[in-house]
Amino acid sequence: MIPNLPSATVAIMYRFQERIYNFGAGPAMLPNEVMEIAAAEFLNYKGSGMSLMEVSHREPLFEDVLQEAESLLRKLLNIGDGYSVAFFSGGATLHFSALPLNLLKEGESFDVAHTGIWTKKAWEEGLKFNGVNVIYDATSNNFTETPILTESDLSGKGNYLHITSNNTIYGSQYPEIPKIKSIPLVADMTSELLSRKIDINDFGVIFAGAQKNIGPSGLSVLIVRNDLIGISGRKIPVLMDYSVMIKNKSLYNTPATYSIYIAKLVFEWLDKLGGVSKMEAVNEEKAKLLYDFIDSSSLYNAPVEKRSRSRMNAVFLLKDKNLETKFLDEAEKNGLHGLGGHRLVGGFRASIYNSMSLAGVQKLVSFMKEFESKV
Amino acid sequence: MIPNLPSATVAIMYRFQERIYNFGAGPAMLPNEVMEIAAAEFLNYKGSGMSLMEVSHREPLFEDVLQEAESLLRKLLNIGDGYSVAFFSGGATLHFSALPLNLLKEGESFDVAHTGIWTKKAWEEGLKFNGVNVIYDATSNNFTETPILTESDLSGKGNYLHITSNNTIYGSQYPEIPKIKSIPLVADMTSELLSRKIDINDFGVIFAGAQKNIGPSGLSVLIVRNDLIGISGRKIPVLMDYSVMIKNKSLYNTPATYSIYIAKLVFEWLDKLGGVSKMEAVNEEKAKLLYDFIDSSSLYNAPVEKRSRSRMNAVFLLKDKNLETKFLDEAEKNGLHGLGGHRLVGGFRASIYNSMSLAGVQKLVSFMKEFESKV
Repeated sequence: MIPNLPSATVAIMYRFQERIYNFGAGPAMLPNEVMEIAAAEFLNYKGSGMSLMEVSHREPLFEDVLQEAESLLRKLLNIGDGYSVAFFSGGATLHFSALPLNLLKEGESFDVAHTGIWTKKAWEEGLKFNGVNVIYDATSNNFTETPILTESDLSGKGNYLHITSNNTIYGSQYPEIPKIKSIPLVADMTSELLSRKIDINDFGVIFAGAQKNIGPSGLSVLIVRNDLIGISGRKIPVLMDYSVMIKNKSLYNTPATYSIYIAKLVFEWLDKLGGVSKMEAVNEEKAKLLYDFIDSSSLYNAPVEKRSRSRMNAVFLLKDKNLETKFLDEAEKNGLHGLGGHRLVGGFRASIYNSMSLAGVQKLVSFMKEFESKV
Repeated sequence: MIPNLPSATVAIMYRFQERIYNFGAGPAMLPNEVMEIAAAEFLNYKGSGMSLMEVSHREPLFEDVLQEAESLLRKLLNIGDGYSVAFFSGGATLHFSALPLNLLKEGESFDVAHTGIWTKKAWEEGLKFNGVNVIYDATSNNFTETPILTESDLSGKGNYLHITSNNTIYGSQYPEIPKIKSIPLVADMTSELLSRKIDINDFGVIFAGAQKNIGPSGLSVLIVRNDLIGISGRKIPVLMDYSVMIKNKSLYNTPATYSIYIAKLVFEWLDKLGGVSKMEAVNEEKAKLLYDFIDSSSLYNAPVEKRSRSRMNAVFLLKDKNLETKFLDEAEKNGLHGLGGHRLVGGFRASIYNSMSLAGVQKLVSFMKEFESKV
């Protein structure tokens, strides 16, 4: 209907064969099936003549997307009526500020179990607004362990406990979510949400930046127990005010509509695959394959204690540091991308989020084997 | 290189002829040329085997996008070294909180010229953290005018003046940017940035949500004079701290990478078209065509004072209210979408942002003429 455009049909051709395996920590690879749907709908969403990116947040076309995204997330994680869900523009870092402002009165404090960079950032940000009690510090073990936390580890002063359930940078993870009942457990699950079964009732708050297992960066998800909403009585910047965001069903202002749409596609994909239990089994298989090989090898080693090894971010080192560049170069040539470790840790990191297939990990292990046999 | 995927080439076909003219206020239509590039690169950005959506914010592929986005914006608006530019996750509303926290010490206040919903929201949010002096209130003229502001209108107490240069909802605009020199002018230019020439030196701060003339929702742009950075000495949530965001070149945390990429494509498109001066001429032509027709018609009328009419959002009414539904239905059938007015104003609104072509406005006017001739 637009007369001043070329009249010829434009065909966008692509081959999935050209897509690589991206082991980067995030913004991470998205499922091929999701990207295929998004590509097909990119210019003309459901026959509307618009991209979903161009649809008003007040139109039913988008309202349906938002509603479906929330209800799929609720289904996947078995989130009951006692909890609210909201989408925020801005990643997990937004919640480092928002959490104390929403959950604590002035003068109150929270407990933190320090297991990596993200707990440090949350701790520093928390100190701007409230007190922080560090009840565990993994500096002593060089961030190679996560603690087994019980009620007796709490400071007794904190109004909630902040943990990072999976440490993207160091590659450590809580094998089980701590069972804390005396105060709310607040968990940054950015790099693992939807990768394993959880019992939502173990948590006061879960938050997660989207760019690992959910969707594009610049978006985060909040799940909060209803009795924790609107309790601080503080003046909170409106886009960080959980009460306002939830009351307005993520529509207080214009949300990141396209990112929420991609998240919805990812939730649908996961649901069709069989949900979180099914995904957890695949993730366990992927992680076992990779760590078992590393443990059996004489070239590679994994620095994180076995009990605390992340099923999402596998950190490993080469015993011969001189081979590092060669390893990365050859991996890249084999379509294995993003394997460099975080600059603070060095070595390598294979992020094997939900969208990394078992085939991808098999290919990585084959490559690592072959590399070892050649050097 | 991914063996477990269907081996057949998948072709995504689309025809631009199927795309409609979307006059919605935002998230708004994006230029067809931009969407075509984005579609072509969607699954495999520059041969990387990844979507740009899947690329780490620390990879050169994205760093180039971010750098180019900033330098194109600087070129388009002729932003000199005395100003800093940053991208934020979160729209204009984020800055309603961030501005007083960044620019004012506790106990200080700002002036606001109240011309519509967005100044009201900024005023209410400002009151959480600081004093607000309302130096002009368009309630008295039912928001059909913008004021001619001079130094003598200022309260004398405010540390900056907050204006909304274009009022998306009421369809009013400042025909000229006020020349205020005694205190910084802070302008919410969400629905007009890049639509007309401005002299950056008239401003202390410009901010704009992306979803009108820039890109996808959930992103905003900040332009701030360097002497206004880091002056409040307050504890600011880190993602609202202009000083931190600028020092880290929009990379303090993971930004909305894909949205910044679309913004870069929009800036490139505008630059190739001849920049803001060229676009301003087209926008003037579009607005003149539409308003001239409305003024000549006996069925339609435009409620905003001629001097203050927005070149971005043309609000108009039907003299016979009973025809409203029929008008919208027939417009929709003609591929003219999103013409309903805001619920607070009623009637109709044609948002004719940069990406709405002259052909689109011509088609709208033809339709309106024909509709008038039939009823």
